[in-house]
Parts: sequence; C-alpha cells; structure tokens
Amino acid sequence: MTSFDWQPHQIAKAQSSKVVVFGSGNFGSCLADHLADSEHKVFLWGRDLDVVESLNSTHRNPRYLTDHVFPESMVAIGPELPDAELLQSADVLLFAIPTQGLRETLTNIHPKLNIERLPLLIFVNKGIEQGTNALTLEIIADTCGPDIARVSTFISGPSFAKEIVQRQPTSVTVCSLSREHAERASRVFHQPWFRCYTGDDPIGVELSGALKNVYAIATGMVAGLGFDQNARAACITRSLAEMTKIGHAYGASPLTFLSLAGVGDLFLTCSSSTSRNYTVGYRLGKGEPLAHILDTLGSVAEGVSTAQGCKAIIDELGVKASLATGVYKILYEGADVKEVGKQLLLQPAGMELDLPRVGEPARRLLAKLGLEHTQLV
Amino acid sequence: MTSFDWQPHQIAKAQSSKVVVFGSGNFGSCLADHLADSEHKVFLWGRDLDVVESLNSTHRNPRYLTDHVFPESMVAIGPELPDAELLQSADVLLFAIPTQGLRETLTNIHPKLNIERLPLLIFVNKGIEQGTNALTLEIIADTCGPDIARVSTFISGPSFAKEIVQRQPTSVTVCSLSREHAERASRVFHQPWFRCYTGDDPIGVELSGALKNVYAIATGMVAGLGFDQNARAACITRSLAEMTKIGHAYGASPLTFLSLAGVGDLFLTCSSSTSRNYTVGYRLGKGEPLAHILDTLGSVAEGVSTAQGCKAIIDELGVKASLATGVYKILYEGADVKEVGKQLLLQPAGMELDLPRVGEPARRLLAKLGLEHTQLV
Repeated sequence: MTSFDWQPHQIAKAQSSKVVVFGSGNFGSCLADHLADSEHKVFLWGRDLDVVESLNSTHRNPRYLTDHVFPESMVAIGPELPDAELLQSADVLLFAIPTQGLRETLTNIHPKLNIERLPLLIFVNKGIEQGTNALTLEIIADTCGPDIARVSTFISGPSFAKEIVQRQPTSVTVCSLSREHAERASRVFHQPWFRCYTGDDPIGVELSGALKNVYAIATGMVAGLGFDQNARAACITRSLAEMTKIGHAYGASPLTFLSLAGVGDLFLTCSSSTSRNYTVGYRLGKGEPLAHILDTLGSVAEGVSTAQGCKAIIDELGVKASLATGVYKILYEGADVKEVGKQLLLQPAGMELDLPRVGEPARRLLAKLGLEHTQLV
Repeated sequence: MTSFDWQPHQIAKAQSSKVVVFGSGNFGSCLADHLADSEHKVFLWGRDLDVVESLNSTHRNPRYLTDHVFPESMVAIGPELPDAELLQSADVLLFAIPTQGLRETLTNIHPKLNIERLPLLIFVNKGIEQGTNALTLEIIADTCGPDIARVSTFISGPSFAKEIVQRQPTSVTVCSLSREHAERASRVFHQPWFRCYTGDDPIGVELSGALKNVYAIATGMVAGLGFDQNARAACITRSLAEMTKIGHAYGASPLTFLSLAGVGDLFLTCSSSTSRNYTVGYRLGKGEPLAHILDTLGSVAEGVSTAQGCKAIIDELGVKASLATGVYKILYEGADVKEVGKQLLLQPAGMELDLPRVGEPARRLLAKLGLEHTQLV
C-alpha cells in the first residue's frame, strides 16, 4: 500500500488557487505535483528548456522523479522568469530554488508584483546564504522589503519527494510571522496525506532546515566509524540539543526544534542512507578523503557549505557547539575524523538541559516530597 | 570497530564505589558489567538462583547477554534480598527491576538502610505503576519518604544493553531533583564510552521513559501499514509533540523531551526492529490479532500496559493526545488499525507549537522587518 484510498468527501477542497512554482528540481516538482493533484492551477517554472519541454509534452521530468507522470493540468514555463501578467494574476508564488540563487530571483520578481494584490509567498528552500550568512527571511526583507517578509511563509519537514508524489502520508511545518498567512498556506496545501501544522517561528524553522545538514554529516560519520545504534541515537539527540542551543541564542524558540521542521527533518536526514549529507559523513568516517567524496557524489551536499555559515553563526553568538565545530574542522581544517570523535567523547560530563517547569501534578508530587515552596515558574 | 581504543589516562577514574545492582535482567546486567569494568566493586542481585550461580561460576548470564563474559570481580547474590550489612556498607544502590515490583522491594529494603550514611539510590526502571498510575519518584516517596525521594537519581537514554557491554559509545541522561546527587551518580558512571548528561527533571525523564513505549507501538503500526519514511518520521515527531504536551500539562519541563531520555530513547525505540513495542505495533499494522501477537512475542511489551496508565493520565489532565488514544483504542477497545490511522490523518490542520522566544539576532532581524516593538519574552 502506498496510501489509504480516500473517499471524495475526505479530500480537502480548498478554493482552487493559481500557483507559480519556481524550481523544477526534486522538491519543486513534487510540490507542484501535489498542488495540481489537489486541483490547483499550477505553473512550474524551470531554468532548463529541456525540462520545461519534456514536462509539457510527456508530463515527465527528465531529471527528477523520472518514474512519475505529472498531472496533465500542470503547465511548465521557462527558462525566462514569468512575466508580470502571470505574477500579478497568481494567488501563490512557491519558491523551491536554491538559497544561493534566491536574492537574484527575488530582485527580478519584486518589481513585477502588484503590492495591492500580493500573492501568498511560500519558501521551501533551505540553507544559509553564502557570504552574508543571511536566512531567507532576511533575503526577502532585503529584496522585497519588510512588509512582504512579515507575511512570507515557510514550509519544512520530513518529506522525501518520491513519497509525496505517491500520496504517502507526509506532515510538514507551515510557518510565518503572520499567523493568518501560515493558515492560508496551510489551506492551500493540506490534505489527509499531506498534513500541515502551523507555527509562527520561521527563524527557528529556517535554522533547523539549514543546520540539520551539518548534523547529518556528523551522524553519518558515527556510522562510518562503525558505531552502532546507541551512538547514532546519541549523536542525533546531541545534535538536536546543539541546534536548539544555537537557535535559542539566535533568538528562535527552543521548542521549534521539537517540530516537524526540527527534529522531524533531522531524524529523516540522519536515518536515511539516501541522504547526501549523511553519505558524505559516512564516507569520511570510513576514511575516504573529502575531495574524492565530493568529486564522486554526483550532486551537492548542502551541509558541506552550510558548515561554514554555521561556524560563523556559532562564533558570532559565542555558543559552544562541539559537534558542528568538529564537522567544520574535519571539512575545512583537515582534522582527522577518528581524532575529532575521540575528543568529543573525552569532553567532561556536564548538564544536559536546564529550564524551569510548571504544572499541577508535578506541584502535587513535589509537595508530597516536602518541596511545596519550590518556585515553579 | 566496536569502540575506540582508550589509553589508560583517558579512562575516567572515579573513586571506587561499592555498588549493589538489583535485577539481573538485560539492563541490570549490562550496567553491573559497565560499573565493574570501571573498577567499582559490584554485587549483582538476581531473583533466580540459577542465574546467580551461573554468574559466579562461569561469569555468564544464562538468560541475557548470553555471549558476554562478565568481569570476574563482579559477585552475584540472591535470590534473597541483600542483608542490612551489605546495604549499609554500599555506596550505591542501583535498581533495575520492573516498576511493578519496585514498591515491594523498596518496602523490604528501606528499614535496612542507614539514614545517617545513605547510599546513592539510582533507578533505571521505566513505566507507570499499574493500579496507582504512580511514577517511580512517587513510589520512592511512599515507601522511603520524601527525604530519600528528593535525592534519588534516574538514568535513562538510548542504550541497548548488548552495545554497552561492548563499550560501544552510549550517552544517557542522569537526573535528580538534587543536582548534587545527579552529579555524584554521573561521576560513578561516566566514561568516554558511557557519557552522562545531568538534568534536574526526573518527572519529565520518567514520563518520557514510560510514554515512549506507547508511541513505539504507534510507529510500528505506521510501518506495518506499509507507510514509508515521511510517515514514520512524522509519527515519531508528532509522538514527541504529544509526549511534550502531556509532560508539560503534567508539570515536566517541555525541554526534557529534547533530552537523551526523551527524543533520544524515543528515536531508538521507534527505529529498531528489535524493539518489542515497535514489533507489537508492526504486527498489528500487518493485521495480526493482538492476542496472537502477545502469545507469540516471547517477552513483555511494556507499552501495552503503559497505554492504560497513559490513557488515565491523559484523561485526568484533559489533554488531547490523539496518537496515544488511538493506540489505546486499538489495544483495549478492538478498534481497527487502518480505521484509526485514517481518522488520525483526517483530523483538521492546526497549530504545531506555540511559545514565545527571545534573542539578539532575532530581535535585530525583527527590527529590520519593522517589528521592533514586538514583545519578545
């Protein structure tokens, strides 16, 4: 079974939206497919003419999800960016292009938008902009202004594209500083097989999405070194603690790291041998030189470049983040994987987490322990 | 490689302690082994004479970790509970017996303790006491009084026994309402290959340890139904969110669920086909009747009984916990796995998490968005 059989009355019927999806890669394609499958009118923009033509003539993407037949209702456009007419009539603009190209694309698109009838802007790219260490929220503010950044929405979570096009149940975080816009985006995307959970901490969601790739490298290294399940679970958990610490110091809510965009995506990325970042770490753990791994990987492992942005953020915040620092030293300073692993295990014991708590049963239980005057904040 | 080779100067040298370990099952045995390996003087109490005799004569446990040779320095005792002399000379009492037998054992032992020279009491059992729905902290308070409960220490985390006896790197949460006692316990256990992270929220740690088994059943069901990695990552993440909600309402710190005892153990339990609770869920998902599964499982799946205690706690707190309630309905009310799964996916979209946040970069970034007056608590 790839999914349940859903009855027509069980399928969510959102108002049909006109959607332009930017990016015909793995994730852009699958989300375009999902939206067209939900009876939205979808235009998928691609930068490569052969992909555009193939999608329109055979309804197949020759580079990604190659086994999948896309809905006939979906129209591929490009390689020129969409014109003002299409952008101004669209209800939703979904950006699934690499973070490194986003500033240029938004700079091009922004003048063509009709501010009086602003479409919903949704971003699914992940990563930290090289050079500036900016999050996407900041790139949007820089290129489109604060009014648009405030209402921009971010979707992230454990979501392999090949499962989404099969209607395999998938759940994601949909968040925006504007709760109204997160809810609007949720209504566009939500189906029983594509569940949307709204949140209001795009900064935490973006940091999770970027940092997780660095920690997937670390977890791959643990496996590559030959360590077993206790060590891998510990590495994922300590990675999460480190991400939370970085995020908290950055100003995100620590609880965002408990979300689908946080632990959910971290877990998926760290437990799948199909993850490129995990694979880079695994092969480093096995002793392969980095240059050889990158030459033969066949695609980009984002965690390798994100490790640099992550290091810059850690240094700026003055946060101790041993795992991310260890990954950075291995990737960029030629440190030995085994030696870094040993040094991490040799760190002294210390506190795990430290926050106050509240609540009635604990209060009652504490009273039973004679601690009724303990301050519970 | 099962572990790094450690040099003598890298091995932590705690003051050698006299330790009595109660329980010669899988986890008691491996912790006794770990402590003896760290040059503590260990007495392992077992309720079965044949296990005690075998451990003393052949240094093997005939029922658990049967391939492993235990240190010759370790002494097995039992089946009578240790006498007052041993208990009063011990530095550490480590309880690795089932929660359901703990009240009786502590009632027996408490009168023999020397309150003036109280040993460190450490608990590694997990679960909710049937009938009372009490946590271990409450059982300790009931049987030994609040003074002892306040300084009792709990160890939990992703830790398969068979890896611990191989010195495979393992990390655990060590926590107590008394930070001093958590640190003392950490000093007894900590090694580069057995890392201890201290905390002060035993209630959250205990709830995590109990509830995770219920959610492992849910995650097993997802796999048994034939769903793939997106769905399993989503199930684990939503399980964690539900555990956090229950724990928060109960009075635990939400961040405890980010710990090794929380997400770490949940992750391990939900991603290993050797987990009994996961297996029960998996087989239910495949359509096997519960009675047949329990008859042929060959051991106890704690999550099955914990689902009852969990339901009672949810009802008392008035918390909506759809996954745990779904598991309960399948186990105890004959609900159909597929139907419960469908109903869970058909729930309306909603908020994922909702907490305020603080921090400088976010403040700066929000100012850039024109939100400088947003209240950041």
